[in-house]
Amino acid sequence: MTTKLSLNPDRLFPIEASTRSIAKQLYSEIKDLPIVSPHGHTDPKWFAENHHFKDPTELLIKPDHYIFRMLYSQGIDLDTLGITTADGQTTETDSRKIWSIFARHYFLFRGTPSRLWFDYVFQHVFSMELVLCEETADDYYDKISEKLASDAFKPRVLFDAFNIDVLVTTESPLDTLEYHIKIKNDTWSGRVLTAFRPDPVVDPEFENFSENVKQLGEITGEDVEKFEGYLAALRQRREYFKSHGATSTDHGHPSALTCDLDQQQKQHLLNQALSGEISPENAELFRGQMLTEMAGMSIDDGLVMQIHPGSHRNHNTFIFNKFGRDKGADMPTSTEYVQNLSALLNKFGNDKRLNIILFTLDETTYSRELAPLAGHYPCLKLGPAWWFHDSPEGMLRFRQQTTETAGFYNTVGFNDDTRAFLSIPARHDVARRMDCYYLSTLVAEGRLDQNDACELAIDLSYNLAKQAYKL
Amino acid sequence: MTTKLSLNPDRLFPIEASTRSIAKQLYSEIKDLPIVSPHGHTDPKWFAENHHFKDPTELLIKPDHYIFRMLYSQGIDLDTLGITTADGQTTETDSRKIWSIFARHYFLFRGTPSRLWFDYVFQHVFSMELVLCEETADDYYDKISEKLASDAFKPRVLFDAFNIDVLVTTESPLDTLEYHIKIKNDTWSGRVLTAFRPDPVVDPEFENFSENVKQLGEITGEDVEKFEGYLAALRQRREYFKSHGATSTDHGHPSALTCDLDQQQKQHLLNQALSGEISPENAELFRGQMLTEMAGMSIDDGLVMQIHPGSHRNHNTFIFNKFGRDKGADMPTSTEYVQNLSALLNKFGNDKRLNIILFTLDETTYSRELAPLAGHYPCLKLGPAWWFHDSPEGMLRFRQQTTETAGFYNTVGFNDDTRAFLSIPARHDVARRMDCYYLSTLVAEGRLDQNDACELAIDLSYNLAKQAYKL
Amino acid sequence: MTTKLSLNPDRLFPIEASTRSIAKQLYSEIKDLPIVSPHGHTDPKWFAENHHFKDPTELLIKPDHYIFRMLYSQGIDLDTLGITTADGQTTETDSRKIWSIFARHYFLFRGTPSRLWFDYVFQHVFSMELVLCEETADDYYDKISEKLASDAFKPRVLFDAFNIDVLVTTESPLDTLEYHIKIKNDTWSGRVLTAFRPDPVVDPEFENFSENVKQLGEITGEDVEKFEGYLAALRQRREYFKSHGATSTDHGHPSALTCDLDQQQKQHLLNQALSGEISPENAELFRGQMLTEMAGMSIDDGLVMQIHPGSHRNHNTFIFNKFGRDKGADMPTSTEYVQNLSALLNKFGNDKRLNIILFTLDETTYSRELAPLAGHYPCLKLGPAWWFHDSPEGMLRFRQQTTETAGFYNTVGFNDDTRAFLSIPARHDVARRMDCYYLSTLVAEGRLDQNDACELAIDLSYNLAKQAYKL
Repeated sequence: MTTKLSLNPDRLFPIEASTRSIAKQLYSEIKDLPIVSPHGHTDPKWFAENHHFKDPTELLIKPDHYIFRMLYSQGIDLDTLGITTADGQTTETDSRKIWSIFARHYFLFRGTPSRLWFDYVFQHVFSMELVLCEETADDYYDKISEKLASDAFKPRVLFDAFNIDVLVTTESPLDTLEYHIKIKNDTWSGRVLTAFRPDPVVDPEFENFSENVKQLGEITGEDVEKFEGYLAALRQRREYFKSHGATSTDHGHPSALTCDLDQQQKQHLLNQALSGEISPENAELFRGQMLTEMAGMSIDDGLVMQIHPGSHRNHNTFIFNKFGRDKGADMPTSTEYVQNLSALLNKFGNDKRLNIILFTLDETTYSRELAPLAGHYPCLKLGPAWWFHDSPEGMLRFRQQTTETAGFYNTVGFNDDTRAFLSIPARHDVARRMDCYYLSTLVAEGRLDQNDACELAIDLSYNLAKQAYKL
Repeated sequence: MTTKLSLNPDRLFPIEASTRSIAKQLYSEIKDLPIVSPHGHTDPKWFAENHHFKDPTELLIKPDHYIFRMLYSQGIDLDTLGITTADGQTTETDSRKIWSIFARHYFLFRGTPSRLWFDYVFQHVFSMELVLCEETADDYYDKISEKLASDAFKPRVLFDAFNIDVLVTTESPLDTLEYHIKIKNDTWSGRVLTAFRPDPVVDPEFENFSENVKQLGEITGEDVEKFEGYLAALRQRREYFKSHGATSTDHGHPSALTCDLDQQQKQHLLNQALSGEISPENAELFRGQMLTEMAGMSIDDGLVMQIHPGSHRNHNTFIFNKFGRDKGADMPTSTEYVQNLSALLNKFGNDKRLNIILFTLDETTYSRELAPLAGHYPCLKLGPAWWFHDSPEGMLRFRQQTTETAGFYNTVGFNDDTRAFLSIPARHDVARRMDCYYLSTLVAEGRLDQNDACELAIDLSYNLAKQAYKL
Repeated sequence: MTTKLSLNPDRLFPIEASTRSIAKQLYSEIKDLPIVSPHGHTDPKWFAENHHFKDPTELLIKPDHYIFRMLYSQGIDLDTLGITTADGQTTETDSRKIWSIFARHYFLFRGTPSRLWFDYVFQHVFSMELVLCEETADDYYDKISEKLASDAFKPRVLFDAFNIDVLVTTESPLDTLEYHIKIKNDTWSGRVLTAFRPDPVVDPEFENFSENVKQLGEITGEDVEKFEGYLAALRQRREYFKSHGATSTDHGHPSALTCDLDQQQKQHLLNQALSGEISPENAELFRGQMLTEMAGMSIDDGLVMQIHPGSHRNHNTFIFNKFGRDKGADMPTSTEYVQNLSALLNKFGNDKRLNIILFTLDETTYSRELAPLAGHYPCLKLGPAWWFHDSPEGMLRFRQQTTETAGFYNTVGFNDDTRAFLSIPARHDVARRMDCYYLSTLVAEGRLDQNDACELAIDLSYNLAKQAYKL
C-alpha cells in the first residue's frame, strides 16, 4: 500500500488556530531568507570539482550516520549497507539493493527528524509523489538517479538553488585547503569557507597524533617539540586558514575542561603526548590546556572559537575496529561547564575581543549552567541544539530552557552541522519553523510583542549567525 | 460536601479540539486490546488459590507504597495504617479505621497518578458514584467489602474480566514456583508467568546473601563456592524458570555498572561476598560482573534481560529497621549508562541473540544516554517510563525525549510494574491514552502520518511488548 | 518608533480558549489575595525609616543583578552602570545616563522574566503608557523620578498598596535587628519580619569568618572557641531573632551535604576554621555538620529551616575582586540530595517537629530526588522554583516534575526571594498566573476536579506559605 507524499504546509507550527496564524505570519517573513550555514561537514571537493553526485545511495545513505545507526540498532549489518571497512573492503556494492533495504525500513524513522529531512528532500528536491516504502523503492531509485545525472543537480547548481549565502566546512590544520582555494579562484560566486579544526594535532588520543604533529612541524618549519614552537606552528596555520577565509575554529573534546598550567607542565605534557606514552588523565589536561591556548590565540587573530564537548567517540569497539570513526557509535555523556571552564574564563573571560560559542549534548546544562554562563560572561554565546538534539522537541527544549536566563541575544542562530548536503534546506526549514513555534507561543501567551517577535525571527534565522561567526 | 465521581471520558487527550479528535480515534482502535503485562509484582498465589480478597484495606492500601509514602510524608505513622513491623507487630488492625484515614487524606493525591488509578478502580471496578472523602468513606468500605465477598470479584474472574492476555510476576531463584505450577496444571486458561529475579543471590548486599547462595547450592547440587559452580547453579535455575514459562530475567541494581573481570578476580570477589566481608566497592564490582555473566547466559538460553538500576533502597533507616523493605523509602539517584554498560556491550553488544531492556529513574538519561545507546546497539531496547515516572507527565517526557533519537521501535510498550492488581487496567489505560496524546500531537503538527499513527498505537499497546518479551 | 505598553490581561494563561477560561476563573479567585512573602532580601531600613526612594536607577537597576548580568554579557561594563567597586569607587554617577543605557538595551530582555516584571512595574506602579526604549528613556526617567518624590511612593505606602500581608527579610546572626525593632515599635501596622541567615558564622569560607565568629562570641558572651559554646551562641541568637518575630532560618551552602561527626571531629574542624587554615574538604564537612546542628536546634525552637544549596558563588574572579559579591556572577551547579541529606535525615528525618524547606538550582533533581524525598519524609517540603527558575517556564517545569510524586501539599507556595521591592507584586502575579496555567490544564485534561483546582489555587497562593513558614 502506498501513501501520498505531502508535507503539511503548517507542520511544526502550534496547533491552536490563533497561535498557528501568528507562526505562519512570522514564517512568511523568514522562509525565503538566504541560508547561513556557519558550521558543518560537507566536502569542499564537491563544490570545487562540481562533478555529478554518483547515485542515491552514495549521496543520501552512506554519509548519513543517523540512518545507519538506526538500521544497525534494528539488526541490519553495516556490511549489507555497503559501508566500507577500515581496511577498504566493501561487501555490498549494489546501490539499488542497499536503497531497497533503506526503503523497507523507512518506517523505523517515524517521529524522528531524519524522516522530516528526508521527506522534505524527496518532495522539494526530487519531486517524489509517494512516500518511500518497499513498493516505491525502485521508482525512487530510478527517478533520483536520473535527476542526479542531470546538470540541474550538480553541486554548485544545488548550492545556488538552495539560496545559500555562505557554507562553512571544517578542515584539519594539516589540510592544504586546495579545494577552498580552487573555489575562490573560480568564477563561481558561491561562498564556501573553511573552519580550523585542530583536534588531530591537539588531542593526544587522536589517531596518529604524534605523526600529525610532526607533519605540522614540517608544514610550518617550527620546532613542534618545544611547546612554544608547537604553539607558533598552530598560530601559523590559523593565520593560513584565516587568509583563506576562515572566521572560526572548532574544538571537539570529550569534556569542557580548560587548564592554565605553567610552562614546565605544558612542555612535560607535550613530551608525553608526542612519545605516545600519556595517561588518559594527562591527555585530558593537555586538551584542557590547549583550549585555553586557543582562546588566547582567538583574542589575537579574531577567529571565533566553537567548543563541542561531551561526545564519547567510538563507543562500540567492534564497529570502530572494523569500520572506523563516525559510524553512529558516538554517545553523549554528562558534561560539566561551570568548574571546567573556569580556568579559561578567569584568564580571558572578560576580554571583549574573545568570542566563544558553546555547544552541548547534555541538555541538563541548558538551564543549570550554559544559560547562566552565557547570560553573564561577555565572551560566551550558546550554539543551537546540537546533533541528537537538532530536532523539533530538542530545539523547543533549547529555547524553553535557555531564553529566560540568557535571552535570545546570547544565542547564535542555527547550525546544520551536517555532511548531508541535500538536507541543508530541510534542516534550516525545521529550525525556522521551530523558532516560529516558540515565538508565536510567547506572543499568544502575552510574553512577547508581535513586532518584537518578527524582528527576532529574522535575527534568529539570519542576523545572529552572520554576526556571531563574523560572516 | 460530596462530589460526583465521573472520570472525563476524554481525559489525558490533548485539549485542542482537532488534536483531541485524532487522539480519540486512535484510542478507539486500541482501548479494547488485551492487556500484556510483561513485568510486575502481583502475587501468583492469588491466581493459584483463587481465594476472595480480604477487605478494601488489605487489597488496596497495604500493598501500595505509593499510598503510604504520601500519607507518611504528611505526618501519618505507618503503625496507624496497619503496616506490620519487621518483627510481626501490627498496631492498628481495624481495617475500616485505616480506610477512613485514607479517605480523609484522599485530597493529598490530587494531581498524582495514584488518584487517576484509584478513581478508575472505584468507578469502573466497584461502580462507586461519589468521590472518596471523609463522608463517603464508610459507604465505600461497605460496598467494596460486599463486592470482594462475591464470586465476581475473585482473582481469576477479575483477571479474565480485565482482558489480560498474559501477566508476568517476578520470583527469586530460590522460589519453587509452586503457584505457577499449580496455575499451569489447572483448567483455568489465564496465563500467569514468572520472571527470574536473581538479586537475592547475586547482590552481596542483599539481606542474607550467603544464606541464599548456600540454599542455591542445595537446590541445584552445585558447588556454589566455586565461581564456575555458582554460575552453573544460576544456569540451572534459569533453565528451571524457563521450563515453567519464564521468558525474561530482571535485575535491580543500585547502578548500571557492568564488569569483565578475570577468573581469579571473580573467585576472589565471590569468596569475599560469601564470607560476608566485602567492601561496598567490591560488592558493586561483583554485581557488575554478574550483569555481564547474566547477559552471556541470556545469549545461550534466550531469556530477555531487564535492567532496573538507580534506586537507593531503604533510604530511611528508621523505617527500614522497624518495617523492612518496600515501604516507600526508596529514592532514585543519578544513573550513568554510557561508561557503565561498556564492559557488557564490548563483550556482547553486537550479538543479535541478546535482548536487553533498559529502565531508568533518572530522566536526564533519556535523551543524553539511553536513546543514543538504544538507537545504535542491536541488543538494547528501552523500557517504558518507570515507577515515579509511570504518570502522564512522566510518560510524555519519555516519548518526547527518546523518540527523536531512538524512534518507536527501540521501545517495548508498557509495563505496569505493580503489586496493586486492581490498578492494572487503570495503568494500561493511562499509558494507552498518553501514547494517543503524543501520537495525535505528532499528527496535528504534521510530523506523522495518521495511518502510521494508528499502526503505532497498536504496536505501542500490544505488539511491541509481545515481541520484546517473547510472549 | 515607540510601542504602546499594554500587558495582555490574559498573559501566562493557556492559549486554548476553554482552558484559558478555566484559568481566568481560577485567577479571579486569587488575584486579590494578600501577598505572603516568606523569604526575600529587601532592606528593612526602607520600611523603618520610610524615606523617599532616590531615583529610578538607584531603585530599579542598581540592586537588580538580573539586569546587570544581562547587560554585562553583552559587553556593557559595570562601571558604566554606576556599580560601586569593592573599595568604594563609583565611575558613573549620572543616574539619567545609566537609565538611558538600560533603556537602549531593554530589547535584550525579550522573553525573560525581568521583562515581564519591569513592564508590570512600569504599567501598574508608574502608569507608563509606552514601552521603554531609547526614545522614551527620558520621559520614563522624569515621570518615575517625580512619582518617587511624592508621598504616595514612600516605602510604607507602597507596602500597603501592594497588599502585603507579611514580608520577610534575611539578616546575619550579628545583626542587631534595629530596623525590625523600629518597625515593630512604630504605629505602622505593616508586618516586616526577619529570618536567621547564619552563613557568615557557619561557613568557614565566608569573608571574615573568624572575625565574624569572634564577634558572635562577644555579642553572646559564649566561649565560641569551644564547639559547645559556639552552638550555645548560635542558639542564643536564634532565640533573639525568634523573640523579634523570626519564624525561619535560611542556609545558602554550595552543596546539600550534611554530616553527623563525633565531638572531637567537630571541635577539630572548628579549630581549623577559626585559624583560617582549613582545606576546602574540611570547610565542606564543617558546613555539612552545621546543617545537622541547625536542624537539631529547629526541633527545639521551632524555626523553619530553609536550605538553598548549589550556587557556585563569585565565579568571575575579576568581577568579585573589583566589585564584590552579588554582581550576577553566581552560577548554578549540579546538586545531589539523596546521599547528601542522609546524615541529617537519619538523625532527625522522622521527627514531626522538624520543618525543612528544600530549594534547588538544579532542575534535574525535581523528579529524580526532591519530589521522592519530600513525598516520603515528614520533615521535608519543597520550596518553589528558585532564582534562575523563577520564570514562567521554570515554574511550569517545577509543577510538571514534582506534583505527580510529591503532590501539591508537600510544596510551600511562592517565594519572591528578591531585593527588588517594586517587583514583588509582579513576581507574585506571575506565580499565581502560572499556577492557574498548570491547574487549568489539569482540569481541561480531566486530571483534576474544577472545585479542587479552585481550592488548590488559594492554597498555592496563600495558605501553604502561611502554614509552612508559620506566619
